[in-house]
Amino acid sequence: MHFAQRLQNVETSAIREIFKLLGTPGIISFAGGFPDAALFDVEGINAASQQALSQHAGQALQYGPTEGYMPLREQIASTLRAQGAAVQAQQLIVTTGSQQALDLLGKTMVSPGDKVLVEGPTFLATIQCFRLYGADVVSVPIDQDGVQVDVLEQQIKEHRPKLIYLIPTFGNPSGAMLTLERRKRILELAAQYKVLVVEDNPYGELYFDAPPPPTLLTLSEQVPGSRDYLAYCGSFSKVVSPGLRLGWMVAPDALLANAAMCKQFSDANSSMLTQVTASEYLASGRLPAALQRVQKVYAERARVMMRHLDECLGDALQYTAPQGGMFIWASLTGAGGGSRDAAAFVKRGVEKGVAAVPGAPFFATHVDHSTFRMSYASVPEDKIIEGVKRLAQAL
Amino acid sequence: MHFAQRLQNVETSAIREIFKLLGTPGIISFAGGFPDAALFDVEGINAASQQALSQHAGQALQYGPTEGYMPLREQIASTLRAQGAAVQAQQLIVTTGSQQALDLLGKTMVSPGDKVLVEGPTFLATIQCFRLYGADVVSVPIDQDGVQVDVLEQQIKEHRPKLIYLIPTFGNPSGAMLTLERRKRILELAAQYKVLVVEDNPYGELYFDAPPPPTLLTLSEQVPGSRDYLAYCGSFSKVVSPGLRLGWMVAPDALLANAAMCKQFSDANSSMLTQVTASEYLASGRLPAALQRVQKVYAERARVMMRHLDECLGDALQYTAPQGGMFIWASLTGAGGGSRDAAAFVKRGVEKGVAAVPGAPFFATHVDHSTFRMSYASVPEDKIIEGVKRLAQAL
Repeated sequence: MHFAQRLQNVETSAIREIFKLLGTPGIISFAGGFPDAALFDVEGINAASQQALSQHAGQALQYGPTEGYMPLREQIASTLRAQGAAVQAQQLIVTTGSQQALDLLGKTMVSPGDKVLVEGPTFLATIQCFRLYGADVVSVPIDQDGVQVDVLEQQIKEHRPKLIYLIPTFGNPSGAMLTLERRKRILELAAQYKVLVVEDNPYGELYFDAPPPPTLLTLSEQVPGSRDYLAYCGSFSKVVSPGLRLGWMVAPDALLANAAMCKQFSDANSSMLTQVTASEYLASGRLPAALQRVQKVYAERARVMMRHLDECLGDALQYTAPQGGMFIWASLTGAGGGSRDAAAFVKRGVEKGVAAVPGAPFFATHVDHSTFRMSYASVPEDKIIEGVKRLAQAL
Repeated sequence: MHFAQRLQNVETSAIREIFKLLGTPGIISFAGGFPDAALFDVEGINAASQQALSQHAGQALQYGPTEGYMPLREQIASTLRAQGAAVQAQQLIVTTGSQQALDLLGKTMVSPGDKVLVEGPTFLATIQCFRLYGADVVSVPIDQDGVQVDVLEQQIKEHRPKLIYLIPTFGNPSGAMLTLERRKRILELAAQYKVLVVEDNPYGELYFDAPPPPTLLTLSEQVPGSRDYLAYCGSFSKVVSPGLRLGWMVAPDALLANAAMCKQFSDANSSMLTQVTASEYLASGRLPAALQRVQKVYAERARVMMRHLDECLGDALQYTAPQGGMFIWASLTGAGGGSRDAAAFVKRGVEKGVAAVPGAPFFATHVDHSTFRMSYASVPEDKIIEGVKRLAQAL
């Protein structure tokens, strides 16, 4: 059988290798990217689901509008307005997880050979998703303050990209947070070069001590013309539950209309049962308390992981201290003559009973082989301590 | 903003025009393609959902395998085995509605310029879905016994298509049913020409009097080599509820692995909440009774519609009497010097207070402008009678 040419653009063996490792019994896994299921508000979601099926069964069990269940769109828009962004329900669509928003952006925007700029490192499913549409994905370097805007401008001039994809707040895998100043600069670049910027924000609510700077979406009010070149993706997966499989995308009118048309032929509409359930859950008012619990637990786990990394691995490791989100991104410094090969280090870790993710697949270009990602989100504190000890043994 | 070139391959204005018409107050609509929400087993699905959230909350609310929730895959495979098809759980993936199965087939198989053969007429979202991947979609003529296999063979030789997409049982929009003999012939052609045949079977369970012939999937056991070139798509939308947004696809190993890889970057996985709910619903044993109710109601509605079409429109109309499914496909004969322009006829119908769908958009090529589609599935009998009267007035 001859498959489509586009499949030749993707390379998934690195990811498969990682997941094969995770089956080892007794392993402590920092490799996942899942939220902690123990923190889901099961009672609240169950109540919302029953409400959906007793009060709105006809809608919840039927096909629905491709753009999404209107009461849910209204609630999402209202939440964004509360964050200072001028968004109406008609300016967003509901998607089957925010992964689908990325897929629809690829389908709507990317022709084979088009350049796409991403952070180096970035979410690896984004790289593959855009490559499936023929994108030539280029990594732009980041530091602890997010993407380096001067390099970004050079790359825009050099590559004339179709779009720029960023996770400005608690990036995956970087944990980095883009500063307010850089956020504004990026919006200026979008308007100046008329290039679409995609702000992916699944982790923004998961801050530890202080809220992050306003989103690009909110800040776009202050930068004339920038909103015309901004798409914003959000998700219920990290704050309510991935099981609902719901995200959303705010975008300029013409882009949104084309994305909705593509969605019609991708999956017709997202599950109405989970959309009505999500809407009832938001209406129940239980989300803020549930979110606070998650913030508190993740913050404490992050602190425990950092403290023990410092104690046990010392200057062999360099990492960005996350201010929110789910990830610590680290690199081997080679201090004391140690190896800087993170893939080999991760393999030794698995032999010692702890898993992390080697950093290489998170780079579209300019791979840094000394890097790896750890998530503390779904690992209890005693396991974090034991896991870090095993990492130290693997050094 | 410059959108992707692939968007130039789709034409959705005809569909939008249809749906604009449906907003007219007091209109009786035969235009829809939705199952009747009044027939959903709300109580059974609600119980299944509560079971999912009380017994399996950790799984139902978490991310899940891209290929689908294993117990559900086992249940689907078991159902297919009961129909005589040798299918294991590992040979199918769960999709976000069967629309996503089509999208994944397009993504996995179709390179720009590839030929795809479909029935003329066929499901219009299939045509657009494959066109978005650059397919050159060609219609093969059908009659009341389904696709004409001799013409199909000629077209295979002429076009060397990447795949052939068929709805062999109670086709949408045709209502036609492929005969047993033609089914076997198509499997022989698949094996002989090594061309992928896609069997889309959302309506197969909705038979009125007698079950349809076995599926291509079941029959492939009897035709050596054919299973290697057969993909089969099924759906819960027409027999349980579209609100779950769940379908499935059986395919040869390499195709299935590539489709799963594409799904990972399309929506990661289908909603685990609805998958666990569907699994609990199937386990409850309530489906057969629910299906019988639907079969009985649709059969009676189809009979009422046919009787009144015969009485009120007589020989002005020609149609295939459906033996199941949701649709009557008709054409204007021009008897008595009447117009054969179905689009104009449908417009006059809307003015008289009844809606149908003009047939033209259901053809990829070789458009028959005298055709239109009516669904009886979600219209009560008194409204069917009144609607057909209005159609007669529009003649």
